[in-house]
Amino acid sequence: MDYWLAEIITIGNEVLSGKTVNTNASHIGRRLTSLGFTVRRITVIMDDVNEIASAFREAIDRRPKVIISSGGLGPTWDDKTAEGLAKALGVDLELNKTAFNMILEKYTKRNIPLTEERKKMAYMPYGAIPVENNEGIAPGIYIYHNNIDILAVPGVPREMENVLENFINKMLRNKPNLKYLEDFIYVENVMESALAPYVKELVKKYDIYIKTHPKSYELSRPILEIQIAGSGREEEEIKAKIEKVKNELVDVIKKLNGIIRNSL
Amino acid sequence: MDYWLAEIITIGNEVLSGKTVNTNASHIGRRLTSLGFTVRRITVIMDDVNEIASAFREAIDRRPKVIISSGGLGPTWDDKTAEGLAKALGVDLELNKTAFNMILEKYTKRNIPLTEERKKMAYMPYGAIPVENNEGIAPGIYIYHNNIDILAVPGVPREMENVLENFINKMLRNKPNLKYLEDFIYVENVMESALAPYVKELVKKYDIYIKTHPKSYELSRPILEIQIAGSGREEEEIKAKIEKVKNELVDVIKKLNGIIRNSL
Repeated sequence: MDYWLAEIITIGNEVLSGKTVNTNASHIGRRLTSLGFTVRRITVIMDDVNEIASAFREAIDRRPKVIISSGGLGPTWDDKTAEGLAKALGVDLELNKTAFNMILEKYTKRNIPLTEERKKMAYMPYGAIPVENNEGIAPGIYIYHNNIDILAVPGVPREMENVLENFINKMLRNKPNLKYLEDFIYVENVMESALAPYVKELVKKYDIYIKTHPKSYELSRPILEIQIAGSGREEEEIKAKIEKVKNELVDVIKKLNGIIRNSL
Repeated sequence: MDYWLAEIITIGNEVLSGKTVNTNASHIGRRLTSLGFTVRRITVIMDDVNEIASAFREAIDRRPKVIISSGGLGPTWDDKTAEGLAKALGVDLELNKTAFNMILEKYTKRNIPLTEERKKMAYMPYGAIPVENNEGIAPGIYIYHNNIDILAVPGVPREMENVLENFINKMLRNKPNLKYLEDFIYVENVMESALAPYVKELVKKYDIYIKTHPKSYELSRPILEIQIAGSGREEEEIKAKIEKVKNELVDVIKKLNGIIRNSL
């Protein structure tokens, strides 16, 4: 298999303390996966300049094709992503004129003065390109560094999704020419441990990804969701491979007295 | 403030690809926070021995008091947490007799033979102590290493919660004698950027954690959730401080023509 690695960074104490479930990372993960990327790591860190700088530096050192962070771009004292990213890249934080004009326009349209806190959202690492945010104020921050597409989006889900799409459509340079496909089988009455040796064999035989997700009790009432996933250049080829694996799995399941279900 | 740092590691490709939302990390984060820990980092990694070993090694190097991982303890080919943890600690993976007996008992009770895949769940890093899993088969893995409490729990939520509680009640050595408290204010009609300078000042004045979570549009219909949180040795002291901060915030909100709401 051919890999286009991606990393996701989530910035926010509320995710660390469990107050907020990290649905932003799931959304970004799904979107990147659908484009053909393999997400290799998600890192959740505090709203702290040094933590943010470390997380970006560590991700850059692992050399993925794309790094996407969410959170920490707002007007408050604890929004420190721009500063942390600048530190990671070893460049200055500066007032970005394009970003400044984007923000100024939004406030002046409504006759709201541009305070220091509002202006703060226009500060970006040197060399950054602001990404339009049609759902809020703070623009995204895009930098192409060491052949890596680096993007920082706001943490508010609606804004995160919007800025991410604007980035994918207009700026993303490392576009994998890969398709990703997946299919599922739902099974009752087969223990995960009983299926395990067959799955292991099929993974080897087809060089494909198969994962069993137990959804109930292994012993008394086993229910499994079996995920079969592959990526490659030719959609038809992956589809055919997944179909073959599915058929072999269904045969095994029947042999083990399993019942195929239409859904969970 | 006094910090008892904790780290969480989530192991599973399905979380990286966005198929599964990381509610396990939220649960563990909330539970650790309620005990007085500060969760400093959550790392999500692939089901890969080297990735698992790196993630544990990196977490150990940051010297938290506790590290809790979830996922990768099952019977299938891609369950590699025990092996990765052993590699991180530089010790052998070995058949743990206590774990073996726990597993054997569960299967034999139901007249199910112990295959290689089922026996696999009894392999643990040298020196590990198995943690009872009352909701499934695979025991948790507990190791006290370099003054850090390290725990690996299964990924199935019901099992994760059970093993975590068994660990907290019977094994956790680094128990913070800290209380954590938080309170919220819900506000309509105040922009996050308008409140920002006041919040910054209060954070400094009281050495407390205040975070504004925007829940709507900054310009047209701003709704904010304001979180005020603190931890310390004396519950009454933290409570009083949070109350003071709340009162000051309410005054500011009224000055800014904000409306206090009972909920979001």
